[in-house]
Amino acid sequence: MAYKIGYLGPKGTFTKIAVDAIFNGDEKKGYTTIPECMDAVEQEEIKYAVLPLENAIEGTVNLTLDYLIEKKPLKIISEVIVPIRQHLMVHPSHVKDWKNIEVIHSHPHAIAQCHHFLHEDMKQVRTESVSSTGAAAKYVSEHPELKVGAIANHLAAEEYGLSIVKKDIHDFTNNHTRFVVLHKYASELFSKKLEVKGYKTTLMITLPSDHPGALHQVLSAFAWRKVNLSKIESRPMKTGLGNYFFLIDIEQKMDDVLIPNAIAELESLGCSVEVLGSYPYFLFNGLSLQV
Amino acid sequence: MAYKIGYLGPKGTFTKIAVDAIFNGDEKKGYTTIPECMDAVEQEEIKYAVLPLENAIEGTVNLTLDYLIEKKPLKIISEVIVPIRQHLMVHPSHVKDWKNIEVIHSHPHAIAQCHHFLHEDMKQVRTESVSSTGAAAKYVSEHPELKVGAIANHLAAEEYGLSIVKKDIHDFTNNHTRFVVLHKYASELFSKKLEVKGYKTTLMITLPSDHPGALHQVLSAFAWRKVNLSKIESRPMKTGLGNYFFLIDIEQKMDDVLIPNAIAELESLGCSVEVLGSYPYFLFNGLSLQV
Repeated sequence: MAYKIGYLGPKGTFTKIAVDAIFNGDEKKGYTTIPECMDAVEQEEIKYAVLPLENAIEGTVNLTLDYLIEKKPLKIISEVIVPIRQHLMVHPSHVKDWKNIEVIHSHPHAIAQCHHFLHEDMKQVRTESVSSTGAAAKYVSEHPELKVGAIANHLAAEEYGLSIVKKDIHDFTNNHTRFVVLHKYASELFSKKLEVKGYKTTLMITLPSDHPGALHQVLSAFAWRKVNLSKIESRPMKTGLGNYFFLIDIEQKMDDVLIPNAIAELESLGCSVEVLGSYPYFLFNGLSLQV
Repeated sequence: MAYKIGYLGPKGTFTKIAVDAIFNGDEKKGYTTIPECMDAVEQEEIKYAVLPLENAIEGTVNLTLDYLIEKKPLKIISEVIVPIRQHLMVHPSHVKDWKNIEVIHSHPHAIAQCHHFLHEDMKQVRTESVSSTGAAAKYVSEHPELKVGAIANHLAAEEYGLSIVKKDIHDFTNNHTRFVVLHKYASELFSKKLEVKGYKTTLMITLPSDHPGALHQVLSAFAWRKVNLSKIESRPMKTGLGNYFFLIDIEQKMDDVLIPNAIAELESLGCSVEVLGSYPYFLFNGLSLQV
């Protein structure tokens, strides 16, 4: 095993920030797509995969979840939450005259996330969509002769030697991304670098049939036990429109009594329940970095 | 008003398929970002915006919802559901020797969605990420001298004169995207081209405080009235981690008694409830098209 850890590449992405927040060392390999990275864990080319689960620029919730549900052997063993912070950066030779840039490159989602800044402070500047924020930063670093800037994160600025001229230009200050660490076997992964903020258990629950109040009944199993849910989401089954399953995050570790009993009762009602993982989670605010 | 309808561009995207499925005529303008398109409706530059709400390749759920919640004046007045169908296409001059292509261009999400096909049937072929499936198709159309293919939808093939050599290469056959039509005022928009499949009412519900069972109580208000929910999703508030609101789709039109009563009760319990829209929805299966 040449590499221990896989992640959704390229360098300079939010996923890379998450990987570096959890893991020390250099045994990290960037994969082009989410399914490729998950296959690598399954085939034991790598031990862990770090992938975006929610609200990341480069990935979508759907892809990671779709393939995780398909490949049930893989388990969530850790989660890291990273705030989305977008910055405007230019080539170091343009630090003084950065207000004269004529075009800003970035991923379309990052451009959209900085809508207010672009429309109020940079109204005269064109935007150009490229395949990733990292690719935008790379382009700027290779074209010092052009009046061009990039919207990207601080890691991309570091990676490509750019200067951040305007920090935190994103519209919503509390936009976070969730990344999960996947492993072939259920376990708990702790970071040597980050403090545990709490524990979660993620369940996938399929209802026996689509009838009014079925979800209400499922939630009853948790509500009367005072088991708190931090997230609930209905998602369509891949078998067709109109059939749903539910993803539920329970705000605690798998225990010996409450959660197993709730699961057993749901199963006796005809639901199918899969434990996608029971794991610690971490918050990486990145404030220690020089941005 | 030069244009009547705005959508998330460029041409040849899934959003364009949705726009053309609902609206006849040519008064359609592609916008670069979701917030720009929504601003245009608010400022009455255009009358309607068609934007991806869920699981589209080009947009994210989060962006449309985040800005819709911020700009509460805009209402959902219609929804169209389009299956995601990805095809492999080449320049017409390569139809016979398409198996010799050396590289496939596409949006990273589209490449990921065709993971099984690429890893089983095209193992020797490189993939190259570009900013949209439309951009990939354009590149192929401009480079007949290269052994290059694109993964994109049938509209991109039409738009750029490419030949589809392998149909429906996506992994999950029941992957759908949801698009909403937004308007400045609450109303219902019907399509002259598509049949109404049903009605939905979308509510945004904020709980008074995060306590175990609060969501269960909210669902009770609908469950005992036998009002069916077709979707439920908790989403973090932009005010910080740990505070959630819920998006609920009710499988019926706003009525005079049941839904208003449920809303009034929830408000008396301290919840805040916003009606994002009450609207007809349509399914566009695209089967009538020559793909």
